[in-house]
Amino acid sequence: MSWLISPNLALDELVAQRRAAGESIVHLGFGESRLPVFPGLVERLVAGADRNAYGPVAGDAAVRSAVAGYFARRGLPTDPEHVVVAPGSKALLLALQAAIPGDVLVPEPCWVTYAPQARLAGKRVFGVPIPAECGGVPDPDRLRETIRQARQQGYDPRLVVLTSPDNPTGTHAPPDVVKTLAMIAEEEDLILLSDEIYRDLVHDPAATPILSPAELARSRTVVITGLSKSLALGGWRIGAARFPDTAWGAQLRADVTGYASESWSTLAGPMQEVATYAFGEPPELLERLARDRGLHRAVARAMYDIVIHGGAECRPPTGGFYVYPDFEPLRETLAGKSVVGGESLQRHLLENCGVAVLAGVHFGDDARALRFRAATSMLYGATRAEQQAALDAPDPLAVGHVRAALDAVEAGFAELAGLSPCHPPPRSPALTGTPH
Amino acid sequence: MSWLISPNLALDELVAQRRAAGESIVHLGFGESRLPVFPGLVERLVAGADRNAYGPVAGDAAVRSAVAGYFARRGLPTDPEHVVVAPGSKALLLALQAAIPGDVLVPEPCWVTYAPQARLAGKRVFGVPIPAECGGVPDPDRLRETIRQARQQGYDPRLVVLTSPDNPTGTHAPPDVVKTLAMIAEEEDLILLSDEIYRDLVHDPAATPILSPAELARSRTVVITGLSKSLALGGWRIGAARFPDTAWGAQLRADVTGYASESWSTLAGPMQEVATYAFGEPPELLERLARDRGLHRAVARAMYDIVIHGGAECRPPTGGFYVYPDFEPLRETLAGKSVVGGESLQRHLLENCGVAVLAGVHFGDDARALRFRAATSMLYGATRAEQQAALDAPDPLAVGHVRAALDAVEAGFAELAGLSPCHPPPRSPALTGTPH
Ligand SMILES: Cc1ncc(COP(=O)(O)O)c(C=O)c1O
Ligand SMILES: Cc1ncc(COP(=O)(O)O)c(C=O)c1O
Repeated sequence: MSWLISPNLALDELVAQRRAAGESIVHLGFGESRLPVFPGLVERLVAGADRNAYGPVAGDAAVRSAVAGYFARRGLPTDPEHVVVAPGSKALLLALQAAIPGDVLVPEPCWVTYAPQARLAGKRVFGVPIPAECGGVPDPDRLRETIRQARQQGYDPRLVVLTSPDNPTGTHAPPDVVKTLAMIAEEEDLILLSDEIYRDLVHDPAATPILSPAELARSRTVVITGLSKSLALGGWRIGAARFPDTAWGAQLRADVTGYASESWSTLAGPMQEVATYAFGEPPELLERLARDRGLHRAVARAMYDIVIHGGAECRPPTGGFYVYPDFEPLRETLAGKSVVGGESLQRHLLENCGVAVLAGVHFGDDARALRFRAATSMLYGATRAEQQAALDAPDPLAVGHVRAALDAVEAGFAELAGLSPCHPPPRSPALTGTPH
Repeated sequence: MSWLISPNLALDELVAQRRAAGESIVHLGFGESRLPVFPGLVERLVAGADRNAYGPVAGDAAVRSAVAGYFARRGLPTDPEHVVVAPGSKALLLALQAAIPGDVLVPEPCWVTYAPQARLAGKRVFGVPIPAECGGVPDPDRLRETIRQARQQGYDPRLVVLTSPDNPTGTHAPPDVVKTLAMIAEEEDLILLSDEIYRDLVHDPAATPILSPAELARSRTVVITGLSKSLALGGWRIGAARFPDTAWGAQLRADVTGYASESWSTLAGPMQEVATYAFGEPPELLERLARDRGLHRAVARAMYDIVIHGGAECRPPTGGFYVYPDFEPLRETLAGKSVVGGESLQRHLLENCGVAVLAGVHFGDDARALRFRAATSMLYGATRAEQQAALDAPDPLAVGHVRAALDAVEAGFAELAGLSPCHPPPRSPALTGTPH
């Protein structure tokens, strides 16, 4: 069997190499919150250092009850017995796809990893376009239609992956859409896999409330979450899953735990200690989270303004740190530069304008679409000091290196629109240097 | 799909529950080095705390070159490009089984995880009995015979898993046996997966030298290792793999990295920092490793004496912290206690004698065989202070709680031989208490 490396990780390595070779690139290509670690988390890592024994596969009682409390505070009362922690939510998603029988339905576009994982697990993948209002969910009508057709062809679509807020669109489904999907799940006997890793990064929960499908389709929804995004801990590898409180849920949890015991064994002890603290949500950590969220919101909105100004259409971002513009209005102009689809657009931006983005096609979107994901979290700075400054600033957009990066992106997109000749953005120490 | 939890982890949880309920059990059931973390490792964990970015899938350049150096010092010159690190060698073994096509041959008995992983990867598993002199390898003649038969039946045996030193037998193959196996690999076009996680725990390398098949069948051997055993870091989850320096090796490494990028993403940054230090083998760490090895040797040999004294047959242990006795000489006596095979022997020892072991059948051995694995590393003490005392003592067998545990085991085995009535060993604080 042969698999390609995940395209986002591959792009990240490519950008690091080019930067090491001296090129100046604004990296909007990798879905990572590049911010310093909160010191309280480091304290817990140290406190957990003597946890060098293997321990229970699903995580020890303390971490599982912290995760249960986390979910309970979000309208999802949870027994610690229904929780599993792991080295990253990605590992859990793979185990779930392996454990749940049948084929899988994913939104189109969606995060790069769902479809390859499904194929690793021997599943057939059906993409369903997202609705006009948001990403992360299949359009309900087209979902019904895809299921009908798939069944006619002898397939067994059983699992639907939902992402809220979403990667790549930076938006999340309004409660009404979630209700419709939960209803369809009941009618069609589907299982919902709700990826809520960006949940705590909804920009403005009062204006755009979030609803988990687990609140509605309780017995048929598995939720996953993690600390990579909300606490900028991607490199620490901490994820968690919540299983339904039913006999089926218990069996599925046993299967996932069985899989874990043949793969990663258990989440590293020191990381369990960290997770116990983090999912416990002490006030100082919530305060830090609120600042992260404010930063993500400000920069994502600025990027939204830039792409709209550059002539693209775009859903306004509502959560996380992504913007997903559509340069369809510029199709004719771009054709003149031999840019005719996602891949050529991505290449043009990287090679001619010093802007690294990931084309929509990598998220399962139409190859001809002039869409890409811009991960705005990469703009906070190359050094810890810069990142901290962005985090501490009352107006992050006024911080020098953030402003410079946004201006460089704006110049790159202006070239797309034919508003200015293309030159790579000026070299600035704020924009070079390898990540971490 | 439905999988059982790994039997060794399941037994560990069972023992923890029984101890929590107040029972006194000598735990010889879990393959873990239960010793304190070396302080220098904790320092590196802290130093690595700010590595919160995802980073390269295979591990960063520093950790890969530390691992390459580690192998080079063992007669295996290695380019850092041929190394992958991961959260545990178990995760790498699964990825390798998924990436290498064909069916798999494993020694009988062998570590509990190989066969379930093979089945997860869709492989057929062929067990080949071990030779008289050692475990961890298939008997060469029977290997040839099994391959012939399997091919006749239309199977495609391609991969052979070797463990040296071995879990469960605590022995390792003499160089001559390894040479024969490497020759068979060439003749039969096999791939060797050499699990060398216990390599640094060979008790007496001068008396019983170790040879890696990678020194002979260079182009067709993948080696895995990790820090769980040699540095008592099971709960930290650090493993590494070394791929052959050939086009095929490069492709396999790419496939494993591709798999990793859809599963665990990368080894946690702080753990990469630890691994860089540990695989660099600074003198203070080698000194600690030598003390660990001395302790493992002393206690494993004491256990060997006990089982021989108890009437069993047994290969003398040469590496790691296991003894694998065969109570066949007592079959008649044991039948009188309704003990007729591995499972009933394991149950009898746990329920009547307060000794937890894992029956040979869990390692793929004959269900009727009166064999089990005793993991002696669990005897060093329940608390950090006790473990440290065992580690520091010039004669660990003279340390009170170690002696008491060995005596309790001796009493339990004496009962098997009908030498004394069975009573559970006396309660001692040294033997109770849940593992951390
Ligand atoms: C939607 C989504 N889910 C899950 C993950 C995986 O995160 P982790 O494995 O770090 O928990 C990511 C990371 O990019 C993501 O964007
Ligand atoms: C033979 C053998 N290989 C590999 C492992 C896995 O170790 P880890 O996943 O902790 O690296 C073990 C642990 O019990 C083992 O005994």
